[in-house]
Amino acid sequence: MTEEIGVGMVGHAFMGAVHSHAWRSVHRFFDVPLTPRLAVLGGRDPVRTKDAAAKYGWAAAETDWRALVARDDVGLVDICTPGDTHAEIALAALAAGKHVLCEKPLANTVAEAEAMAAAAEEAATRGVRSMVAFNYRRVPAIALARRMVAEGRIGEIRHVRAVYLQDWLSDPASPMTWRLRKEKAGSGALGDLGAHIVDAAQYVTGDLITGVSATTETFVRSRPDEDGVGVGEVTVDDAAVFLARFSSGALGTFEATRYALGRKNAMRLEVNGTRGSLAFDFEAMNELSVYSADDGSAAGFRRILVTEADHPYVGAWWPPGHLLGYEHTFTHEAADFLTAIGGGVDPAPSFADGLRVQRVLAAVEESAGQQSTWTTIGDVR
Amino acid sequence: MTEEIGVGMVGHAFMGAVHSHAWRSVHRFFDVPLTPRLAVLGGRDPVRTKDAAAKYGWAAAETDWRALVARDDVGLVDICTPGDTHAEIALAALAAGKHVLCEKPLANTVAEAEAMAAAAEEAATRGVRSMVAFNYRRVPAIALARRMVAEGRIGEIRHVRAVYLQDWLSDPASPMTWRLRKEKAGSGALGDLGAHIVDAAQYVTGDLITGVSATTETFVRSRPDEDGVGVGEVTVDDAAVFLARFSSGALGTFEATRYALGRKNAMRLEVNGTRGSLAFDFEAMNELSVYSADDGSAAGFRRILVTEADHPYVGAWWPPGHLLGYEHTFTHEAADFLTAIGGGVDPAPSFADGLRVQRVLAAVEESAGQQSTWTTIGDVR
Amino acid sequence: MTEEIGVGMVGHAFMGAVHSHAWRSVHRFFDVPLTPRLAVLGGRDPVRTKDAAAKYGWAAAETDWRALVARDDVGLVDICTPGDTHAEIALAALAAGKHVLCEKPLANTVAEAEAMAAAAEEAATRGVRSMVAFNYRRVPAIALARRMVAEGRIGEIRHVRAVYLQDWLSDPASPMTWRLRKEKAGSGALGDLGAHIVDAAQYVTGDLITGVSATTETFVRSRPDEDGVGVGEVTVDDAAVFLARFSSGALGTFEATRYALGRKNAMRLEVNGTRGSLAFDFEAMNELSVYSADDGSAAGFRRILVTEADHPYVGAWWPPGHLLGYEHTFTHEAADFLTAIGGGVDPAPSFADGLRVQRVLAAVEESAGQQSTWTTIGDVR
Amino acid sequence: MTEEIGVGMVGHAFMGAVHSHAWRSVHRFFDVPLTPRLAVLGGRDPVRTKDAAAKYGWAAAETDWRALVARDDVGLVDICTPGDTHAEIALAALAAGKHVLCEKPLANTVAEAEAMAAAAEEAATRGVRSMVAFNYRRVPAIALARRMVAEGRIGEIRHVRAVYLQDWLSDPASPMTWRLRKEKAGSGALGDLGAHIVDAAQYVTGDLITGVSATTETFVRSRPDEDGVGVGEVTVDDAAVFLARFSSGALGTFEATRYALGRKNAMRLEVNGTRGSLAFDFEAMNELSVYSADDGSAAGFRRILVTEADHPYVGAWWPPGHLLGYEHTFTHEAADFLTAIGGGVDPAPSFADGLRVQRVLAAVEESAGQQSTWTTIGDVR
Repeated sequence: MTEEIGVGMVGHAFMGAVHSHAWRSVHRFFDVPLTPRLAVLGGRDPVRTKDAAAKYGWAAAETDWRALVARDDVGLVDICTPGDTHAEIALAALAAGKHVLCEKPLANTVAEAEAMAAAAEEAATRGVRSMVAFNYRRVPAIALARRMVAEGRIGEIRHVRAVYLQDWLSDPASPMTWRLRKEKAGSGALGDLGAHIVDAAQYVTGDLITGVSATTETFVRSRPDEDGVGVGEVTVDDAAVFLARFSSGALGTFEATRYALGRKNAMRLEVNGTRGSLAFDFEAMNELSVYSADDGSAAGFRRILVTEADHPYVGAWWPPGHLLGYEHTFTHEAADFLTAIGGGVDPAPSFADGLRVQRVLAAVEESAGQQSTWTTIGDVR
Repeated sequence: MTEEIGVGMVGHAFMGAVHSHAWRSVHRFFDVPLTPRLAVLGGRDPVRTKDAAAKYGWAAAETDWRALVARDDVGLVDICTPGDTHAEIALAALAAGKHVLCEKPLANTVAEAEAMAAAAEEAATRGVRSMVAFNYRRVPAIALARRMVAEGRIGEIRHVRAVYLQDWLSDPASPMTWRLRKEKAGSGALGDLGAHIVDAAQYVTGDLITGVSATTETFVRSRPDEDGVGVGEVTVDDAAVFLARFSSGALGTFEATRYALGRKNAMRLEVNGTRGSLAFDFEAMNELSVYSADDGSAAGFRRILVTEADHPYVGAWWPPGHLLGYEHTFTHEAADFLTAIGGGVDPAPSFADGLRVQRVLAAVEESAGQQSTWTTIGDVR
Repeated sequence: MTEEIGVGMVGHAFMGAVHSHAWRSVHRFFDVPLTPRLAVLGGRDPVRTKDAAAKYGWAAAETDWRALVARDDVGLVDICTPGDTHAEIALAALAAGKHVLCEKPLANTVAEAEAMAAAAEEAATRGVRSMVAFNYRRVPAIALARRMVAEGRIGEIRHVRAVYLQDWLSDPASPMTWRLRKEKAGSGALGDLGAHIVDAAQYVTGDLITGVSATTETFVRSRPDEDGVGVGEVTVDDAAVFLARFSSGALGTFEATRYALGRKNAMRLEVNGTRGSLAFDFEAMNELSVYSADDGSAAGFRRILVTEADHPYVGAWWPPGHLLGYEHTFTHEAADFLTAIGGGVDPAPSFADGLRVQRVLAAVEESAGQQSTWTTIGDVR
Repeated sequence: MTEEIGVGMVGHAFMGAVHSHAWRSVHRFFDVPLTPRLAVLGGRDPVRTKDAAAKYGWAAAETDWRALVARDDVGLVDICTPGDTHAEIALAALAAGKHVLCEKPLANTVAEAEAMAAAAEEAATRGVRSMVAFNYRRVPAIALARRMVAEGRIGEIRHVRAVYLQDWLSDPASPMTWRLRKEKAGSGALGDLGAHIVDAAQYVTGDLITGVSATTETFVRSRPDEDGVGVGEVTVDDAAVFLARFSSGALGTFEATRYALGRKNAMRLEVNGTRGSLAFDFEAMNELSVYSADDGSAAGFRRILVTEADHPYVGAWWPPGHLLGYEHTFTHEAADFLTAIGGGVDPAPSFADGLRVQRVLAAVEESAGQQSTWTTIGDVR
């Protein structure tokens, strides 16, 4: 049994449930240098937090995140709250010398993200590690896609097309949630879904977005309140579409929406290069389609079932053809973070990477507010 | 046997071959009011034109298109030339009282298209019919998609995503063709491929594009000449991407490219509405995927094999499950045009519809030249 | 223009329509040494035959097939009738020195097929050619599959699984047709559909079936008569399933049915070998899926769009990605037959090949009648 | 926190790893009446068993399964060993009043399975529960398929086609394992893979197999030993194919093989009825394809993403479109077993169900040994 590290996690909704599973399971499958101990769960409501702690296997519960961060038995803080509290929790935890895993998008504003990236850089000099939770990088098929690009199998990249399509707002009678309020969520489909495809596109191509032209839309501007009584105002985008240019010269198209009826979780990425092409759909997340011009008259998109022992992350799991699911990506994320902490290296994606995504999201909003005029993205230091 | 109509066709390359097949075959499958007679084929080179006429079954050959238009045995002129000659041939034919079928895009400029639409409108008052050859409207699956939208099964439309992906320019060593020269082709992927998806998106949704934000790119600016000796300059776009707004408020994303390696003819259209969704891919042109929210917990995209007798155009062909191919769309087009001529009604898509597409293409180029700034599309007439 | 050959065709239903199209079109796309002239169409009803001749482009009509065979302007007899008349027409035509194309299955009994194969062999010594119309060999994807097996890319074959699924009898209220009467059709799904997959499996693998174990079933034993008044007895199988052994040692499973609801024309073939695998579905007839063990960790079934110029038959048609349909297989068949006649060689599949399939079908019926006991197939000379 | 139940598990290879995960996780997602405590892990090698216990989270290790069964802190025995020891462990555990979960196939012979079913029936009178681990019943898509059949949506069933295709023996150089030795495994692909599809076919249709006609094959009869030195004899089947009849009259075809190159875990099931059809492939285990004749001209196979809250088991997990993986089926199995124990009811599939499958496997072997002669399956009491 390796040394333990106490985890304190803030937030116990959807992300809290899946992160809990990762912390409980990671060392059962991966040889990690540190074994996570589920020390304490943080939440605002004392009863619900205590119940969640019991259900998810946490040893204690705290209603004050500052107390959670300060505990001696916490060496790692995992932030699973809405975006409006990421910055203050992360800054406090880093200052306290705790390693920090922060859900995406990194923050609700570029200014917050800049402060977080700066704090993370400073903390790293003290051996304190931080990572932003772009879990889709840990889908084996996505990691394999990146590997194939890096190996040169795709050649010079010409086109990227990325969509993230969901449909849970298609019905105008669906009620309000915090995700539809700008003060909590920062933005709508853009930050929730668009952040994932921006990060995935940059990760797979190994390239950065340098400019965008964008439009956003809120199709349904008021919805029934959560309490079923009143009506709430939707203050975020329902959908965001944008064109992009990568530093390599490649062209990109992006779309994030919650109104694509029938598409439940269609995070799709296609890349076309001079030697090959890649296609991925999260609704079939164990598959990667790859085209290689080298295959000549027998060329066609190969449906690779990414379940072989030599595919990324897969060796820890089952024999070929036995599929992995959504929560495995978080287990992989936990493994990578623990491995970096144990190895004394900075993990990726860093807060600086999260800031880079944030800048792209901000440029999308800026362009959308200026008649879609092309908007360039400033360099991260 | 119904009355005959003499057809004079100008151009005998790819489009000429497939149009010839349609004129030879249409009355063998469809009950058309007029039987086409392949009267005369026009081309510039006398030997090649005569050979093509023999191969494709034309009774005569002409090297002067004006002579072809003037012949007494020609009642219908079919224009299969590059875009730079569409306008003059069409105007002359309409003036001569000949019905005109014109390949897409309608013209190389909005001004030409305006003149053609005006001439067509005037000719219609004399009983002379004209149609632009957007053959994809005659894919049974596309026609079925339109029918489903018109019946209200998709509801109010929120999103359209349309791509037309080919890959024949991926290799920088591929030689020049007339399609890469602006003076012949007008534009590149935009006019060749983009015109199809703009028309198809408007046709299926029954809605018009009101504005765009666009970027275009020429990845490879010089290529080996056709003669294998020199080097030619590519003066058209290799790829065009644009955002669009429809008059209904729906958002659209469009992409036309010849650099999507492995995608041979991927003209894809997806439509998301408040009641259902549609998805089509020309590489599987006999299928339409349809999602209906009414299906409840058994909802999923239905792969409809559009080969049933009650699907558009299909009753004329084979039993269910026996696929149709590319050239069938032209046979359907010929059937529709002959039916309109025989019935004394104006067929669709009209030259005015072609002009509408032309205006969208022009707006794309304008926006691309002005930092992607949103560009509205003026009304036709 | 090449020399003409007069074609006399007997039968003008479904097969007659599609064969007519092939004879009209073949020389427009393929460089064949003989140009078919649609000389005369044979049928029993004088009015309907004459109408069909006009519709399909035949110069004359005959109600007596013996007269048709005897005509001087007929050099090739094409037999598109139900199976009960194949033998007598073919024998007469071969005796009269006419080349013969005969629809599948070759005959209704092994005895008939033996007589036909013997006659064909004798006729060949006089330069008279014969071919059985297993048109699925002319699907480009099937021909490519055979080529890949022949090139050794699949290795030693272990498994074949072949199904031909239709659903037009699923409804017990569907009326009788000649296809449900043993005296006309010989057998039901077995001869109609099973014959195709037996031939295709042997063609693609280059191997022969040596024995079978089988069961057949008639789910609905009486149906409304064609006249809508009485009730007819179904005297053929609705479905046939059988296990098979190939001479290579490979195992096969086969199923032919008209009760697979939702499967319209699912003629599917899968082959697994020691180096690779193949999968084909006629409902997506332009695609071949190929797996190669050589692809290592990037291995997956490749969806080859069989529309490249170097794929079998495709060079005569359109650019990549432009699909072919059902009737193209008959055009290819006509091209192959005319090429063999012109070249003075025997075409494949020969009547002996048709006999071989007939023996397999007979063994299936024999095994099904004997508690599925393994039944071996006698050698064709 | 609910009452605990101590689990003793025998075996810590592939099945042991995945069962451990289920026992650790089940109460974190499902409201089960008993919380499993991972009391003791059994294995033959003391060091490896102790290591496995630590890795998988078991409190203790035992090398004597009889001691494990006898422990007071064990209320439930989970048998994950090869088939040759299932009977004796299960009989001892039931006699000791311990609930028993036993991996499939239930036993290596019908005689053993009969003894086990009898013991289970007797134990049930004492409130001791038993279940055989056909985990594929717990795939949400399979459970949904059964629900749809039970609701009458598929109508009267005509056809079942079931294959279970893997490829890990395609390479003749792959070494021996216990799975290739008859004395350990009982049979080869038949018991390992065929058992799953027999159970799944009977489960989904709600119908039983009454007779079979079969052939089996061992393609490669000797392989390198595990130690890399000698050569071992393969004493089980490599592949088994069989025809089947269901008590409803439906026809079935079955195939189990480890030589289907490129098919990693293709457990596929298709069902055709008079009102609808179903298709499932374990390589896309979150999807169920359903065809309904009621959909009229808009009918097509619906790809249902079985991730909605009202789909079986799914409500315990993530939002729509977030996929489940292989090990979830075991978590569902654990939930069902604990629920049955807590509720005082007998769970399914019972040992009697396991015996029924065993009888089918025995009939397959018997038929294969008798020239594929049809072999009926005796009734389970």
